[in-house]
Parts: sequence; structure tokens; C-alpha cells
Amino acid sequence: MSASTQGNPAQQAATDADAPGAQVLLHCNWLNKQLWFDQLTAAGVPVAWPDDIRDWSSIRYAVGWNFTPEVLAKMPGLRAIASLGAGVDHAMRPGLIPPGVDILRIVDPLMAQRMATWVMWAVVNFQRKMDAYARAQAERRWDKTIENLKPWDNGEVRVGILGYGVMGQAAAALLRAAGYNVAAWARTPRGSSSDVQVFSGRESLRSFVERTDVLVCLLPLTPETEGIIGAQLLSWLPRGAGVINAARGRHLDEGALLAAIDSGHVAGAVLDVFATEPLPPDSPLWAQPKVRITPHVSSITDVPNAVAQIAENYQRLLAGQPLLRVADKSAGY
Amino acid sequence: MSASTQGNPAQQAATDADAPGAQVLLHCNWLNKQLWFDQLTAAGVPVAWPDDIRDWSSIRYAVGWNFTPEVLAKMPGLRAIASLGAGVDHAMRPGLIPPGVDILRIVDPLMAQRMATWVMWAVVNFQRKMDAYARAQAERRWDKTIENLKPWDNGEVRVGILGYGVMGQAAAALLRAAGYNVAAWARTPRGSSSDVQVFSGRESLRSFVERTDVLVCLLPLTPETEGIIGAQLLSWLPRGAGVINAARGRHLDEGALLAAIDSGHVAGAVLDVFATEPLPPDSPLWAQPKVRITPHVSSITDVPNAVAQIAENYQRLLAGQPLLRVADKSAGY
Repeated sequence: MSASTQGNPAQQAATDADAPGAQVLLHCNWLNKQLWFDQLTAAGVPVAWPDDIRDWSSIRYAVGWNFTPEVLAKMPGLRAIASLGAGVDHAMRPGLIPPGVDILRIVDPLMAQRMATWVMWAVVNFQRKMDAYARAQAERRWDKTIENLKPWDNGEVRVGILGYGVMGQAAAALLRAAGYNVAAWARTPRGSSSDVQVFSGRESLRSFVERTDVLVCLLPLTPETEGIIGAQLLSWLPRGAGVINAARGRHLDEGALLAAIDSGHVAGAVLDVFATEPLPPDSPLWAQPKVRITPHVSSITDVPNAVAQIAENYQRLLAGQPLLRVADKSAGY
Repeated sequence: MSASTQGNPAQQAATDADAPGAQVLLHCNWLNKQLWFDQLTAAGVPVAWPDDIRDWSSIRYAVGWNFTPEVLAKMPGLRAIASLGAGVDHAMRPGLIPPGVDILRIVDPLMAQRMATWVMWAVVNFQRKMDAYARAQAERRWDKTIENLKPWDNGEVRVGILGYGVMGQAAAALLRAAGYNVAAWARTPRGSSSDVQVFSGRESLRSFVERTDVLVCLLPLTPETEGIIGAQLLSWLPRGAGVINAARGRHLDEGALLAAIDSGHVAGAVLDVFATEPLPPDSPLWAQPKVRITPHVSSITDVPNAVAQIAENYQRLLAGQPLLRVADKSAGY
């Protein structure tokens, strides 16, 4: 049962406020976890690491990433989990989070701007063959023929964005400002604007992919979207297309991508996310010159902004007010 | 005297039209010069290479790049020179082109879009440390600390565009769409918009540079702007700034840039143009890891579009009509 459905919020708030020293679990193994700890503490959220929890049964609010069934089983009083990032797929595994526990997202306009900027860079990097220029530079070679003496113009490049939520819409708007031919694909019907045609539903996926020269994945990861970029979808792309993934590694079948690159069907890829992260040193992706890799940095969470949202929901939980940015478990995001 | 100032256009047109086989000089040593020749011919412009000119004194119209005094001296009847690209600095050397000869520019909106796209890529490539990620990839190294665990947000990046003509305005608009903090500097006063503060005149140059984290040069090359990015201007940049040049190599003192990078004052550069092109193999720029090089491809001329503009002015010259896109020799562009 979430705070937003409490029968008697005032009474519940009093109960929570009365619990002296009720801790908030911080569950995170990120490199910058101490920064999160310090900023959450400074924002009035009494976070504690798992080893420092005095009374697991008193915990109502947990903050973090990649909660395990074992940890969750220790918190029968849990009401809400606040995600540290925009994606909540880490909390959406069927059966993982008990029915009465809300999953809270971070919604940060700057995260969408960061993502759109990374996507724009990735599209241009592929379109204008910037990695080939880098290789020429390493050989002190002045080669004007790399783009066949004329760039592939933006209006001729059909970008296709898989996923048309906050991230997809921000990327589409920026790409349109640069004159690209942009379409998007979403699970559910959306209005198409004059600028961006939006395909929807599985039945339109093939038509969407067939008109796409540069595919950009910005989908949420759900059972429906896992593995969506596999051998079949890649075969629908026109020969010479590019693939960009900034969503989740498990959207993409990495082996199928490498095979499509080896066959020459796909001309290149820019990947920020991987099935296993950190990407293992023995992954063949590292050494494929047509694949450009960044280490899941396309849109890093802005800590102060996220902390403010997590603290706001913590105060609302204490006060028995409806929580904000609650993920839709039936949709998976 | 240009066709646009003819006293009797109709009579002049008859004279030109009557001159059987009056050739048009094509003066170009570019890699794709045959493409230009073929497309100009197909568009009805009777171009000929220097070796194939039958009667130099009959030439009224010349098309090309980097005309020499020797070639120009052979054409006493010349009325107009059509540039093959947007920049006309190659025809602006004092005393090079006789007073009565018009210099005709190419004005191609797609050239501005291409340029804006390259500039956007260059800004992001510097801002988000994309070359450091490429080096990490070469070492199969997953390193999330490269951007200090959080990107430098667009709104915090003060981009300063030197030059606010067609190219500068297109780049500014795209960078603003991505949320960058953009200012520009122009020779003559322009209106500032709510989005872009425009500095003007030498006296404001220092204030403009001091507020600039990423300097983008899109100036025309004139005696006033040659060498403008030298040791002094670089010293005005905040420590850690980036330098992007997509205008002309002679805007930049390459030695001063390398010294500023060596000292750590300038953090990186993305260069498309060089004092000597092709950039000589022994240039130290090639091997400086903080310098990214492309071989003058930021905005390649679109041949069909340029050919149409050159042919249009040729027909206007024959018909005694005012020529279009005439450069202002007093301004130098």
C-alpha cells in the first residue's frame, strides 16, 4: 500500500514522525556512492548503508539501484523505493518489488538534454564519418575523400528513434532543429507532429525500421522491449545503416549487431550501454573499428537534482502526502 | 565595371551573345575538379581549362578558386569571377582582382547547416571528452570517471562564436536549441537577441573572449581578422577553454595554440582549417592528442547547388542583368 492510498494520512505521518531514528536504506555500489550519501544526508534524508541499518523492520523508504530479493525481504514495512536514475527497469523484474511498494522515478529535464546532446553527437559522428578522420589523423593523412567529397546532408538522413518518452522527444527536437528527417516508434499511439512521424505498435515496427538510416534506441527496458534490436530488426534496416543505443544493453543482441557489421549490412554503431556492464575486457565490441563505445555516460544523473526529488518524496511520505513521479508498474516504466 | 552597372544592358547582352564560342575559364585544382567541369558544362556554362582557352581576351566570366595575378593579367575583358565556395578571401588579396571585376559568392543554406552540424559535433566532442573515451576504448578500459562522474551541462558551457554571418548564425541557433549559453562577436554592431548576446568591434573582443569557454571561429578571412586567434587572445580565454576553427587556417596562430595547450591553459582544439593545406605531414598538430583534425570538410560546397548559382549569374551576365551575390570588396567578404 503506498502513501498515496493511505486511509488516514495524518495519523500515518504522526506514526512515521514519531519513530525516532527511522533510517532510510541507501543501496548503491556506484563509484560516486559517497557523494550520494553525503548529499542525501545534507538534504535531511537519514540514509544508512546496509551494514549500518539498526532495525530493518522500521524501514519505510529505500533509495538506490539494483535491489536484490534478499535485501527487499528484510524490509516488510517498506512503502517506496526511490530510484537514483531515470530508468526504473532495475526495480521492475516481475515479482521483485512487493505490490504495495511504490517505485519512484527521477525526472530531470537536464537528463533529457544531456541525452539529446549525446545522441546528436553520435548521429553526426556516424553520419560524417568522424572516426575515419581520427584514423587518418593518427596516420598524419589528409584525406578529403572520406565523405566522398560531400557530406551526407542532414535532410537526407532518416533518423528513427525507438522510444518516444521524455528522452526520445528531446532527442527528436534537437535532431529536427539540425534538419534531420526524424521519425519515432512508441509502444502506444502518440500524435504525430508535422515534424516527427510517430509509428506505434508492433505491427508498424518493420515499416519504421525500413525507413530508418540511423536507428537510435531510447526505449525503457521491459519484457516487451528486451532484445528488440535483434537479427530480424537489423535485417529490416537499409544496407549501410547505423545503430545507436543509449537505453539499456539488453535492448540489443550484441552478437547479432556484430554479425550485421561483419556482413557489411550495418555500417557502424555507437553504444553507451551493454548487456554486461562494465563491458568485459574480452568483449569483441571494444576492438570493432565500426563500433564506438562510451561507458554508460550518455545521460548521467545530476546528483543535486535527483537528491532534491528523493528528499521531496521522503518529506511527502512522512507527511502522508501522495508521492510524486510514481512509476507505472503495469507499463514497466 | 560590373554588369550590374552597365549603361546599356540590352546592347551588352547582344554583344556577349554574339561572341561565338566565348569561353568561360575554369580555374581549379581540387580533387573533384572534373565533377565541376562536367556539371558546369551540363548547366550551359561553356567552361574550359586554362590550357584549352583559345582567346584569353574574349573571356568575360571566370569560375574558380585561388586565381593568380598571372592568370588574371591575361583577361583584360573579365567582368566577374564566380567563387566555387562560400569564402571569397581567396579573391580578396589587395590588388589581385581589378576594380571593375565583380566577385560572386555561393550562398547555400545547406552549407550553413553542414557547418552548424560540424560545429555542434566539435563542441560536444570537446565538452563531453569524447576523444578520451576513444582512447579508453582502444585500451578496452571502462572508465566512467572521464567526465568526473557528471557531464559539464550545456547551460554551463559558454560558447563564443567569432563571426556572426550566415554560418555563425546557423551554428548559434543550433547550439541554442541544445541549451548552450551562446554569445557571438562581429566586426560591426548587430542586434542581440534574447538568446544570443552579440559583441561587436575590437574594443569588445577581450570581454567576449573572457566569457567564452568554447571559442568557435567562423569569421571571414580579411586583413583585419588574419591571425586574430593569437597568443594574446588565447591568454584572455578562461583556463581549460576549447578552441574550434572552421573558418580559415590563417585566423589562427598554430604555434600560439600549441603553446597554450602545452601550458595547460587551453584544454583542447578541434580544427578543420590550417595555415597550410593539406596540413603537412610534419605538422606537430597531427600528434597532439588534445587537437582533433578534420581535413577542411566542415562544410563542403554542394556542387549541384553551386553550379546552379554560377550558371544563373552567367546567364544574367549574358542578358546584361544585375549579378547576384556580389561580394563587398570594401568589407572583404
